[in-house]
Amino acid sequence: MSSSPSTGKLWGGRFSSDTDELVKLLNNSLPFDGRMWRQDIRGSIAHATMLGETGIIPSDDAIVICKGLAEIEAGLSEGSLTLDPEQEDIHAAVEASLREKIGLVAGKLHTARSRNDQVATDLRLYLRDALGDVLTVVTSLQETMLARASEETDTILPGCTHLQHGQPVLLAHHLLAYFWMFQRDRERLEIVRTRVNRLPLGAGAMAGTTFPINRQRVAELLKFDCVIENSMDAVADRDFAIEFLSAASILMVHLSRLAEEIIIWNSPEYGFVALDDSVTTGSSIMPQKKNPDVAELARGKTGRVFGNLMALLTVMKGLPLTYNKDMQEDKEPIFDTLDILLTLLPPFTKMIATAKFQRDRMKSSLKGDFSTATDLADLLVRQGMPFRDAHHVIGTIVKRCEENQILLEEMTPTQLSEFSPLFANEPDYMATVEMSVGARKAEGGTAAEAVLSQLEKARSILSS
Amino acid sequence: MSSSPSTGKLWGGRFSSDTDELVKLLNNSLPFDGRMWRQDIRGSIAHATMLGETGIIPSDDAIVICKGLAEIEAGLSEGSLTLDPEQEDIHAAVEASLREKIGLVAGKLHTARSRNDQVATDLRLYLRDALGDVLTVVTSLQETMLARASEETDTILPGCTHLQHGQPVLLAHHLLAYFWMFQRDRERLEIVRTRVNRLPLGAGAMAGTTFPINRQRVAELLKFDCVIENSMDAVADRDFAIEFLSAASILMVHLSRLAEEIIIWNSPEYGFVALDDSVTTGSSIMPQKKNPDVAELARGKTGRVFGNLMALLTVMKGLPLTYNKDMQEDKEPIFDTLDILLTLLPPFTKMIATAKFQRDRMKSSLKGDFSTATDLADLLVRQGMPFRDAHHVIGTIVKRCEENQILLEEMTPTQLSEFSPLFANEPDYMATVEMSVGARKAEGGTAAEAVLSQLEKARSILSS
Amino acid sequence: MSSSPSTGKLWGGRFSSDTDELVKLLNNSLPFDGRMWRQDIRGSIAHATMLGETGIIPSDDAIVICKGLAEIEAGLSEGSLTLDPEQEDIHAAVEASLREKIGLVAGKLHTARSRNDQVATDLRLYLRDALGDVLTVVTSLQETMLARASEETDTILPGCTHLQHGQPVLLAHHLLAYFWMFQRDRERLEIVRTRVNRLPLGAGAMAGTTFPINRQRVAELLKFDCVIENSMDAVADRDFAIEFLSAASILMVHLSRLAEEIIIWNSPEYGFVALDDSVTTGSSIMPQKKNPDVAELARGKTGRVFGNLMALLTVMKGLPLTYNKDMQEDKEPIFDTLDILLTLLPPFTKMIATAKFQRDRMKSSLKGDFSTATDLADLLVRQGMPFRDAHHVIGTIVKRCEENQILLEEMTPTQLSEFSPLFANEPDYMATVEMSVGARKAEGGTAAEAVLSQLEKARSILSS
Amino acid sequence: MSSSPSTGKLWGGRFSSDTDELVKLLNNSLPFDGRMWRQDIRGSIAHATMLGETGIIPSDDAIVICKGLAEIEAGLSEGSLTLDPEQEDIHAAVEASLREKIGLVAGKLHTARSRNDQVATDLRLYLRDALGDVLTVVTSLQETMLARASEETDTILPGCTHLQHGQPVLLAHHLLAYFWMFQRDRERLEIVRTRVNRLPLGAGAMAGTTFPINRQRVAELLKFDCVIENSMDAVADRDFAIEFLSAASILMVHLSRLAEEIIIWNSPEYGFVALDDSVTTGSSIMPQKKNPDVAELARGKTGRVFGNLMALLTVMKGLPLTYNKDMQEDKEPIFDTLDILLTLLPPFTKMIATAKFQRDRMKSSLKGDFSTATDLADLLVRQGMPFRDAHHVIGTIVKRCEENQILLEEMTPTQLSEFSPLFANEPDYMATVEMSVGARKAEGGTAAEAVLSQLEKARSILSS
Repeated sequence: MSSSPSTGKLWGGRFSSDTDELVKLLNNSLPFDGRMWRQDIRGSIAHATMLGETGIIPSDDAIVICKGLAEIEAGLSEGSLTLDPEQEDIHAAVEASLREKIGLVAGKLHTARSRNDQVATDLRLYLRDALGDVLTVVTSLQETMLARASEETDTILPGCTHLQHGQPVLLAHHLLAYFWMFQRDRERLEIVRTRVNRLPLGAGAMAGTTFPINRQRVAELLKFDCVIENSMDAVADRDFAIEFLSAASILMVHLSRLAEEIIIWNSPEYGFVALDDSVTTGSSIMPQKKNPDVAELARGKTGRVFGNLMALLTVMKGLPLTYNKDMQEDKEPIFDTLDILLTLLPPFTKMIATAKFQRDRMKSSLKGDFSTATDLADLLVRQGMPFRDAHHVIGTIVKRCEENQILLEEMTPTQLSEFSPLFANEPDYMATVEMSVGARKAEGGTAAEAVLSQLEKARSILSS
Repeated sequence: MSSSPSTGKLWGGRFSSDTDELVKLLNNSLPFDGRMWRQDIRGSIAHATMLGETGIIPSDDAIVICKGLAEIEAGLSEGSLTLDPEQEDIHAAVEASLREKIGLVAGKLHTARSRNDQVATDLRLYLRDALGDVLTVVTSLQETMLARASEETDTILPGCTHLQHGQPVLLAHHLLAYFWMFQRDRERLEIVRTRVNRLPLGAGAMAGTTFPINRQRVAELLKFDCVIENSMDAVADRDFAIEFLSAASILMVHLSRLAEEIIIWNSPEYGFVALDDSVTTGSSIMPQKKNPDVAELARGKTGRVFGNLMALLTVMKGLPLTYNKDMQEDKEPIFDTLDILLTLLPPFTKMIATAKFQRDRMKSSLKGDFSTATDLADLLVRQGMPFRDAHHVIGTIVKRCEENQILLEEMTPTQLSEFSPLFANEPDYMATVEMSVGARKAEGGTAAEAVLSQLEKARSILSS
Repeated sequence: MSSSPSTGKLWGGRFSSDTDELVKLLNNSLPFDGRMWRQDIRGSIAHATMLGETGIIPSDDAIVICKGLAEIEAGLSEGSLTLDPEQEDIHAAVEASLREKIGLVAGKLHTARSRNDQVATDLRLYLRDALGDVLTVVTSLQETMLARASEETDTILPGCTHLQHGQPVLLAHHLLAYFWMFQRDRERLEIVRTRVNRLPLGAGAMAGTTFPINRQRVAELLKFDCVIENSMDAVADRDFAIEFLSAASILMVHLSRLAEEIIIWNSPEYGFVALDDSVTTGSSIMPQKKNPDVAELARGKTGRVFGNLMALLTVMKGLPLTYNKDMQEDKEPIFDTLDILLTLLPPFTKMIATAKFQRDRMKSSLKGDFSTATDLADLLVRQGMPFRDAHHVIGTIVKRCEENQILLEEMTPTQLSEFSPLFANEPDYMATVEMSVGARKAEGGTAAEAVLSQLEKARSILSS
Repeated sequence: MSSSPSTGKLWGGRFSSDTDELVKLLNNSLPFDGRMWRQDIRGSIAHATMLGETGIIPSDDAIVICKGLAEIEAGLSEGSLTLDPEQEDIHAAVEASLREKIGLVAGKLHTARSRNDQVATDLRLYLRDALGDVLTVVTSLQETMLARASEETDTILPGCTHLQHGQPVLLAHHLLAYFWMFQRDRERLEIVRTRVNRLPLGAGAMAGTTFPINRQRVAELLKFDCVIENSMDAVADRDFAIEFLSAASILMVHLSRLAEEIIIWNSPEYGFVALDDSVTTGSSIMPQKKNPDVAELARGKTGRVFGNLMALLTVMKGLPLTYNKDMQEDKEPIFDTLDILLTLLPPFTKMIATAKFQRDRMKSSLKGDFSTATDLADLLVRQGMPFRDAHHVIGTIVKRCEENQILLEEMTPTQLSEFSPLFANEPDYMATVEMSVGARKAEGGTAAEAVLSQLEKARSILSS
């Protein structure tokens, strides 16, 4: 192959025949790694700066290279420049653009580095930047949960297990449960960011380099926390990407749970929530429909994110050291997941922010639902009956109520005394849902005072 | 919302406020479902034809609609027309384009159908078409396996279990193992095609329609095998898509196994194969590298396809009847998988077709590898020794050889007789690899005569 | 290592030191493959019979071996015999038991076979048997769906998309949607069974065998449809197992969807179904609870089955030919999946069979839900208005109703005429839910006559 | 149902008919949650202690309960006691055992708690304990990697990308790459442990409790770091379990990669490692085989762990608050993963510890492999040639060598000067593999001095 180094691809000297067109098409990653152009240029500027500072290349050359790269970045930003779509990846495309701009000196940029450490650096920079964006939208959702919870400290709805009424709870308490889930998501994403923020550059192809590079300096320029200690690990590692996909999957689990509740609450039978027109869509055939698409898409996209996690785990399984081309398949799952999070969370947050909780429907739903039965059992316990027996007594009462179609609230003292004489000791025996909620004062419980203290903690976490 | 039906989206009459821009962005599927435009138009033409034939709409209107749709298809094909990117999906985009072309009569096209049955129809048509392409590229790979096997009926290499030499086999036999895997893949894909090829159109939103449609006629026009028997199932079902992803996953398992072998065989230590320059690529830093990228990408993309399968399974889990917006997430996993198969298989096939198998290296690798040990044990068995004892005797001989660093082939009759007197009965006791291979004549074995008969079967399957 | 072949493990002649205890523990598969003892013995009897018939071993020896194996099977069946738990797998355990019973002649059983083809045979036999059981329980569920549907051809409930009321449908129609899903499951499982039912025995370790075996005879004895054509493929293939897990995953998708509906319908807000006490459970703390555990476990176990599919796909990815120890990990995912299906489906079927559908609640839920809006639009279409416009008109009416809190059913002709004069042409303009259902007569629709014909088809499929 | 509370299950008062036997079988979790008996008892003792201290139950009762529980623990530990296998879960089984031992007062233990918060507490305690064991075996593997690396600071082998020789590296460097992977695993597992170590008890069924419990006291008694702030979140959360499975999956990725290398290195063609007899196994048919089963099982079990992760993610997707029975499916994936890690890592570590690295084979493999080509290019760069051009020059030299079948090492100065006059400036132009390794001195590189400093860091991390 006679391609000259100054016009052709990054390699080729040893090849006798051209790459097959179908292979090129399969191999080229520019269509998806092209989005890392900012990071690729930023990394190259730091690398060239260091090469100049250490004298590995003449400092004048370094200056020319950095200036050229900065111009390319500016050109791409403002749209006056486009990269050559024929190049096989973003690294080649940027280098080709640089060569066009500053000539053969561009060929010095790749001194003391390989695409193996370069792509790992680009990906870490990209993910670090994007994680900042993800954290912003998660925080915004948390703020919304907190704001909505603050408004609903008087609203009571059925607390459920098995989608059956268990005990009445404050809507504020219910909404705050999600606040804490998202708080854990933020914790996880912050940890992922520290794991991402380690510099692979300097690892070269995998063995390090024969040039006296200064990796600490590059780390400093690019704001990495530290350098990766082993060059083979540096180019072979994608743990940070899997960790991100794993944290994203758990975040999606939380969104899917809240989405499921919104979808169920939004059904005519529940009517616990009315979604704003602006976050719902209609049907092409049924004129009356107003569908909770945002919630459904959140639930559906959960599958996609799980799939992306599974994809990358499977890609990495059983790969011998160090870099293998399989690892090029890391990017699409990461980018797809980032796109999902960043396009989903803002409208999802808007859906929550604009939702109208239907307090009356929630309240009426508690009527006759036996959700205070535990309180009645607790009452007997306070009279000395072992809980296990109290549970049985109340179960029998519930059964009687159902058979006779009467509400638990309507049972008279006389009727109750048939089941246990201990009821006679408590004149105000019957718990209302308000009493039931109010009695759960212990830390983490649903009583207003516990919830207010929980709100306080949540606020202080968000503001810190 | 005051959008008039003739200019705006497909719904909106009942909405008071506009859709949020972020929700629109999240919701719109045109960027990915746009690729089904041919199928959408073809389905609409069949639907309109039937509407006209049954008198549900005036036949003149049907003719105008069909003509308009045909023009749109022609325009899109030749690039003289583009769809409005603001439309929320391919169905809306095509209808909007039709309205522009033929005016308000376009509004009659959606009579007696919903996007729910329409999208299911489009997707089935698209997948049916694409399955044809996939079958073509799989068949082509099979042909290549068969052709390469036919050339290697004299080549012996170590047959492995646990990547340890087990028994010598013909390379033809080894390659044919993959032929049969791909044959099963074709069988599965053919079955998927029959499952795909059932007509959902006519299910309407989910309950059927009040118009006297003729679903059999639409099935006939679109070449579907039959209509789906239950309208709710018709719009809620994505089994066919999961089945495709499952068949694709197994196909990728096979490709990944062959890829792994190519990668290992291509290592300098093995040297069993030399890949053509045209299917390998170089390194940006190491001038000597010639990397088996196509094989590595096949192995890596396997993860992506598994992820797509997992994604769609998860999307569908626990969805109540019938259509839910989550199901919009079916398309990207399917399209991504099709793209992977259709861009990967041709260069993969070329890699196999142009691979130079290194017969000498294969042969020399068998030297002193004890791979004829089983034959020696079988020899004792033929002298009456129970196999279990023969196995033990030979194991002890192997141990002795290793300890004394001599080859099994070099053991003299006298030396062997120390381990069992039965060796004395067989003057030509020592199996060469050629004898070992030649002795495995039973159906499915590696002897040349069995392999030739296998080749014959393979050929007749391909030609049928 | 001095272990004698007649007492020790199946190999060892060439080893100098004993296996590490931790390695043994890791390696031994008897704890899970032990459940294939019937199949292992059955396969060995067929193999020994063939060895005797072909004269590979003396026919007297074959008779002794077969008799010994039959006695072991009887002993294990009736509990008078147990296998030695120290053996490393079921094959070794049975052979050891045989040796104990008939002495050294037992060592002849392993002539012309390997554990590689033996375990593949055992697993295929086991799965074939188990698939029969699975098909039985799926059929039983189908019968139940059909029986329940037959009872509910007069019951109307809201047909949903997006968990929003779309159009009214017959409960029979809704239940039959699942019948067809399960029908596809049966079709898939039947196909899996044919793929399972191919004989690997005779492949030996991977290259075939030097003995003149008769594989067709073994296939006949074990009722396999055919022999596998390539010995390397025969021991390396686990497609059939992945296919089973894939079919099982789709079945679980269906169960999880029906489970989700049961759970939602069983909520107090819906009240569409009352589950029998015998299939629900209580709470340890809340005396009133009656939880739909069977449905929840069906939904939850779906995740387990998906996980099993993903596990085996990942295990097989990238394995070079032929057998690798990784493949030992095929059994637990298969067995776990079979156990899930066989313990879940019977109580699930009982849950459906004993469920009390609450017809009144379903009916009252339709009141004022605008689910006949499509019918009104269709009415305008029949008067000549393009559907798209009709859709818009009705959407506007719905909005007006909501704003004024009136039911669609309550709109007077005069009020409607404000929106379109065409309403005046239809004196009985207003569709009731009964009329709406009754009008959807086309094939696959929800009208009683279409559903009765659907029931007929379903019945004939089941009885064939 | 007339079951008395003192003999029957934990609930039942409200039920009219007994649970179906098939439902019981499906529902009962004792077969797998029984292994948490220590944690269940420990949690109950802490709970009862707090109940007594706060006066919620008489302190005498608390003492009797705690004593009874301690006796049960002792009995189970020493095998003198067994739990009733008919009980539906470990909580019921322990309570039933307690009732048998101390009578009706046992019924007071369940005051102010539910199985929902109890099982979450048990699982967290169990996982916390087990994580300690996992950390121990991972650390032990790290120590072994470090020890083996320390022995191999003079051993050179080909460093690979794409399984092609890239540049020579020290074996110590290669082995240390895994040290750092396992270090990240430990970091992740430590973080999982902090997330696990938060107390859910006190959340009751989901709303908290009406009794004045002291959760901080229970946290202190059970050594939890803190209490969970929201009772609904406390019973609905399984993030900690998913996080564990995710960390375990990444650990398995690392093991599978090292396993893959061991398997490849152990092939006759490579011969880079000889595994100890004690960690390999034989074949039932091929007497010469010595298979790397431990490595293969590590690779295979990776699929199982991925499957477990996918299972639990799928289980949790879309579950409405709070506890749902689906969540019972959390235990088997967790337990299976723990079992895999704890039975796999010790023999895996032994395999590494006893492996004999074949230094001569590694060295001879480098001969004529062009792996010093990058060094030659770097040499030209130091003479002022841009790297991109130097890369091309060397590529052309490599091609010439291959065409003429000569080694790069054998090229004379005259021959080289044909390609570039700059070679003349460097009399010792030709890099040996030793020179190549020695030149990569920058931080993280493979030169001995860099590796020694890396070893130092690794040692100090392990000892801290």
